[in-house]
Amino acid sequence: MAGVIRNILFIMFDQLRFDYLSCAGHQHLHTPNIDALAARGVRFSRAYAQSTICGASRMSFYTGRYVSSHGAAWNNFPLKVGEMTLGDHLRKHAVRSWLVGKTHMKADDEGMDRLGISRESIIGARVSECGFDVFVRDDGLWAEGVDGFYDTRRSPYNEYLKEKGYPSDNPWADNANAGVDSDGNIASGWFMKNARLAANIAEEDSETPWLTSRAIEFLESAEARQPWLCHLSYIKPHWPYIVPAPYNDMYDRRHIQPAIRNPGERQHPHPVYEQFMSGAVGQSFQRDVVRETVIPAYMGLIKQCDDQIGRLFAHLENSGRMADTMIVLTSDHGDYLGDHWLGEKELFHDPSVRIPLIVYDPRREADAARGSVCDALVESIDLAPTFLEAIGAPIPGHILEGCSLTPFLHGHSPATWRRFAVSEYDYAATPVAAALGLPPRDARLFMIVTDRWKFVHAEGGFRPMLFDLRTDPYEFRDLGGQPQYARIIDEMYKYLFEWARRQSQRTTVADERVLAMRKGGSARKGILLGVYDEDEADPQLLEKYRGKAMKPASR
Amino acid sequence: MAGVIRNILFIMFDQLRFDYLSCAGHQHLHTPNIDALAARGVRFSRAYAQSTICGASRMSFYTGRYVSSHGAAWNNFPLKVGEMTLGDHLRKHAVRSWLVGKTHMKADDEGMDRLGISRESIIGARVSECGFDVFVRDDGLWAEGVDGFYDTRRSPYNEYLKEKGYPSDNPWADNANAGVDSDGNIASGWFMKNARLAANIAEEDSETPWLTSRAIEFLESAEARQPWLCHLSYIKPHWPYIVPAPYNDMYDRRHIQPAIRNPGERQHPHPVYEQFMSGAVGQSFQRDVVRETVIPAYMGLIKQCDDQIGRLFAHLENSGRMADTMIVLTSDHGDYLGDHWLGEKELFHDPSVRIPLIVYDPRREADAARGSVCDALVESIDLAPTFLEAIGAPIPGHILEGCSLTPFLHGHSPATWRRFAVSEYDYAATPVAAALGLPPRDARLFMIVTDRWKFVHAEGGFRPMLFDLRTDPYEFRDLGGQPQYARIIDEMYKYLFEWARRQSQRTTVADERVLAMRKGGSARKGILLGVYDEDEADPQLLEKYRGKAMKPASR
Repeated sequence: MAGVIRNILFIMFDQLRFDYLSCAGHQHLHTPNIDALAARGVRFSRAYAQSTICGASRMSFYTGRYVSSHGAAWNNFPLKVGEMTLGDHLRKHAVRSWLVGKTHMKADDEGMDRLGISRESIIGARVSECGFDVFVRDDGLWAEGVDGFYDTRRSPYNEYLKEKGYPSDNPWADNANAGVDSDGNIASGWFMKNARLAANIAEEDSETPWLTSRAIEFLESAEARQPWLCHLSYIKPHWPYIVPAPYNDMYDRRHIQPAIRNPGERQHPHPVYEQFMSGAVGQSFQRDVVRETVIPAYMGLIKQCDDQIGRLFAHLENSGRMADTMIVLTSDHGDYLGDHWLGEKELFHDPSVRIPLIVYDPRREADAARGSVCDALVESIDLAPTFLEAIGAPIPGHILEGCSLTPFLHGHSPATWRRFAVSEYDYAATPVAAALGLPPRDARLFMIVTDRWKFVHAEGGFRPMLFDLRTDPYEFRDLGGQPQYARIIDEMYKYLFEWARRQSQRTTVADERVLAMRKGGSARKGILLGVYDEDEADPQLLEKYRGKAMKPASR
Repeated sequence: MAGVIRNILFIMFDQLRFDYLSCAGHQHLHTPNIDALAARGVRFSRAYAQSTICGASRMSFYTGRYVSSHGAAWNNFPLKVGEMTLGDHLRKHAVRSWLVGKTHMKADDEGMDRLGISRESIIGARVSECGFDVFVRDDGLWAEGVDGFYDTRRSPYNEYLKEKGYPSDNPWADNANAGVDSDGNIASGWFMKNARLAANIAEEDSETPWLTSRAIEFLESAEARQPWLCHLSYIKPHWPYIVPAPYNDMYDRRHIQPAIRNPGERQHPHPVYEQFMSGAVGQSFQRDVVRETVIPAYMGLIKQCDDQIGRLFAHLENSGRMADTMIVLTSDHGDYLGDHWLGEKELFHDPSVRIPLIVYDPRREADAARGSVCDALVESIDLAPTFLEAIGAPIPGHILEGCSLTPFLHGHSPATWRRFAVSEYDYAATPVAAALGLPPRDARLFMIVTDRWKFVHAEGGFRPMLFDLRTDPYEFRDLGGQPQYARIIDEMYKYLFEWARRQSQRTTVADERVLAMRKGGSARKGILLGVYDEDEADPQLLEKYRGKAMKPASR
C-alpha cells in the first residue's frame, strides 16, 4: 500500500504545445523550472487531450470522462447537471477542490432551474463552477466588441488592474493585451502584427504573475490548512499573442523552429482538413510574417510562465509543500502556429491534440521513476483516477473512464494498458460545418491513436484519415484514401467501434454492486421464479408459504 | 398543422405478449375491447421494447432515450438525477403527467443528496418518481420472503384490501396471488402448479379492476380538469400466474397455442442462449405441465385486462374524453412462456422483445388511418416525441432519440424512416453472467432488427446471433455462426456501429442553437482570430480598437 498524498496542485496552461518546453526538446526555448519538475517527476511524452478545444477538453479533465460521455462537446456548451466532477469525487474523501483561474465552465442553468438548485447555495455554486470551490475564477478572455463582452462575468483581473490605477475601462484589453503604437495609440494584441510590441503593463501586473500571486495567496490561506486540490489554471500562453517586456524581446525569427508542414499536404487533402486550411485562421498562419511575428511572442509568454512556475515552486519548497503535494502540469490542448498549414487547434495533428503532462509524486514509492519519460498512451481523463488513488480513495470505475497513472509514477508498467487513445472534436457550431453543408450530428470527428497509427473518422460520409507515425512522424502523408491500408483502417474502425460501445452512463451502480447482485437474493425476498411446486424450492425459502391456514375471502 | 390533443392516456401492461390479443391473431383469446381500440386507431405490428426487462424498458419509455443513453440498464438501477423524463418535457407545455400504477423507478438517492434535492419537495418527489406526479403508485410486487419484502414502499393496494376486510398482513400475497388448497391452506401463486386455482379474492378486488377504478377516480378528479397525461400502468398479466374466478376457468389446454420451439434450437446453441435455456426458469418452462398450467392463467389475466379496458373505455366515452384524448396501449416487454425453450423474457426472440402497441388519435387528421396496421419498425422511445407533437409542442431532438409516430397515425408514410430498431439487455447482475464468467461490461447484448434480419451482438467475445425473419419467421435457425452470412453480419455490425456513435449526451444545447452559432458572433464580441492587421478585419468590428489614445502604464 503506497503512502497517501495530502494535497494536489493541478496546474493547467491554455494552448501550451507539448513540444514548447526544453525538456520536450525545444531548441531555443529554455524552461528550466518546468524541466526541474520533470526531473523530479515523470514526463508523459504521449499524452492526448480528449478534445482539441478548451471547453470540451476541460470538461473531460474535470469529469474524468470522454466528451461524448459528458456531452459538453464545445465551448460554452453547458455541462449537464448531474455529471459528477473531480470536486464531487474528492469531497467525498474530505479533500476540497479549489479553483484559481480558468475553467471555461458554462453552468446548466436550465437543468439547475428544473431541479430547483439555486446558484446562491453552496451546492449550486459548485454545480455552476464544475465542482470547484472558487478561490478566484477568471477565464481570461475579457474581449469586448461591437456587441459587448464575450464573457459577461465579473473579471477579478480587471478589478485588480483598475485598483492598481490602470485607467482603462477594460485594462485587460487595453494594457495586458495591447501595446502602444508610434502615435501613442492603443495597438491591440488582437492584431497579430502587434505581437512584436511590449504589452503596455508592468510585468508583475500581467496575467501570469497575477494568477501566480493568487495561487500563493491560496497556499497561505486558511483554506489550505485542510487537504486540498488546487486547480491553478492559467489563460496563457493562449492568444492574444502579446507579452510585456522583457519577454517580448527575448526571441526572434532565429529562435523559431521550422514549420512542420509539407507541400504534399495540400495535394488532395481530406475535405474537412481542406476546409480548415482554407479558413481565415489557416490562411493567416500560412504566411511567414504571421509565424515570425507571433511565435516569438508565444515563446515569450511561455518563458514568463516558466519563470512564474519557478516562483511558485520556490514557495512550495520553502513552505514544505513539496513533501506532501502531488503536482501536475499540463495543458488543455496545443496550438498549430502554422504547422500543417493551420492555426489554432481543432484537428488532431500532434501540435494540436498532444499535450504536455508532467506529474510529480512526493511519495517515496515514486523515487525510482523520478526524471523518467513515459511513452505510454495517456489520456487527460487519467488524472481524475490518479488523484483519487493518490489520496487513498477508491476509484469509481463505473463513472470515471480513465486509468490511474500511479503504476508509471512508481516505476512499474501495468500488466495491461490501453491499446489506443481517443480524442473527439465536434465542429457542428463552426463555419467549417456550414461550408461542408453538414447537419450537426455529422460534424463530428473521432481520433484513434495507437503506438504506430493515428486514425481520424469523420462523420458525414467522408473517408477516414490515417497516418503512419513510425514512417511519417510529422503526419505529412494522409494514407486514409489508399486501398493498401484497408486492413489497418479496418483495425482502427474496430477500436473505434469497441470504444463507441463502452458502457458510459451506468453511473448510479458500481461494478462491485452488480457483481454482488449475481448471487441473487430476490428469492429470499419472496420472488420465486420457475418454481412449479414446493418440492422444487429451497426448503429454507418456504416458511412463508407452508401450511398457512387461509380464510376464504368474502365474495 | 394538425389539431392539438388535450389529454394523453398512456396505458401499459406488464409482460403482455404482442401476440396474445385477438387483433394480433390469437386463435382462442378474445380481446374485443382492445381490438376495438385497434379498430379506431393504428396497431403497430412491429414495435420493439428498448430492453427486455421491466426497469430498463420503462426508463426508455419515460425518458424517450435508449438504455445506454439513460444508463438505468437493469431493474432497480437508479435513473440518474438530471435525466429528463416525459413529465419534464410535458410540464414545460402546461401538461402534467400523472402516475396510476407501476413504474419500477428507483430514485437516484445519492445524486439527489449530492445536489441537495429533498424527496419531500415537489421537485424531489418528481425526480424520485421518474417525472410523474403520483396519483397512485403501486409497483404490484409485494412479495415477502425470509429476508422480508422485495419492495419496502407502502402498498396502496394492500392498504385497500385490508380496509376491505381481508385479514392477512399481506393480502396481495395471500389473497390476490394465492388460492386455497384442498386442506384449506394457502396455495401460493408463486408455485405454478397453483395457477389452476381461483385466486382467493373477490374479482372486483383483484389488482386489475382495483387499478382501473383508481384510473376512473383520476379521470373524475380535479387534477383531470387541466390537460394531463395519465400513465395507467398495470402489473398484470405479469406473474404470479393466478387469476380470480371466473377467469381461472375460461381456458384450458385446448386453448394453448403450440409452443414456438424447435429441437434444432438446442443443437449448438449460442453460449448465452444456452445458459438461459439451462437456467431454472428455462428448464421449468420446457415442461409441458408448466405451460399447460400457466398459460390458461396468463390468458385469463389478459381476458380480465381486456374486460377492465372495456369498463375504462366506456367511462371515457360517456365522459366525452374519447374526443380529446390520445390513447396508447402497450407493454414493457413480452413473456416466453416456453417458446424457444425459455421462460420469462431477457433475450430477443419476438415473444420477449416485441410489444403490442396501439395508438388511438382522436383528431380528424387520423380518420384515414383508423383500423390500419402499420408494420414499420417502431421503438418504445417513439412515444415521447409522439406525445409532444400531439400537444403541439416542439420535439427536443437533442434529448429524445425516437421519432414521432404522427405521420403513421395520420395515414402518411414518412419520407425517411429508421432502417433498423435496437434493443439492449444488460445481464451483468444475473447468474448467467456468473456462469459465463463475464465481467460486468462484457455481459451486454445488443439487438438490431431490420425488415428482414434480426441480429444480436454479445459483448465478451462471443459470435453474434442472426435470424432471417423472411425464411425463418419463428427464429429457429441461428445463422450467426455460418460463414455464408458474413456479409449480412458485417452489414448488421455497420448498423450497430452507426448507432453506437450516435450523439446521445449533448442534451444541454439544441440543434437549432448549434446551427445559429455557425454564423459566428464571437468576432462581434471582440474575439478576432487570424487577423494580422486592421485592414484584414471587417471595418464594422474595429471601432473598439481604432485611434484610441493610450496612456503609458505606470511601471
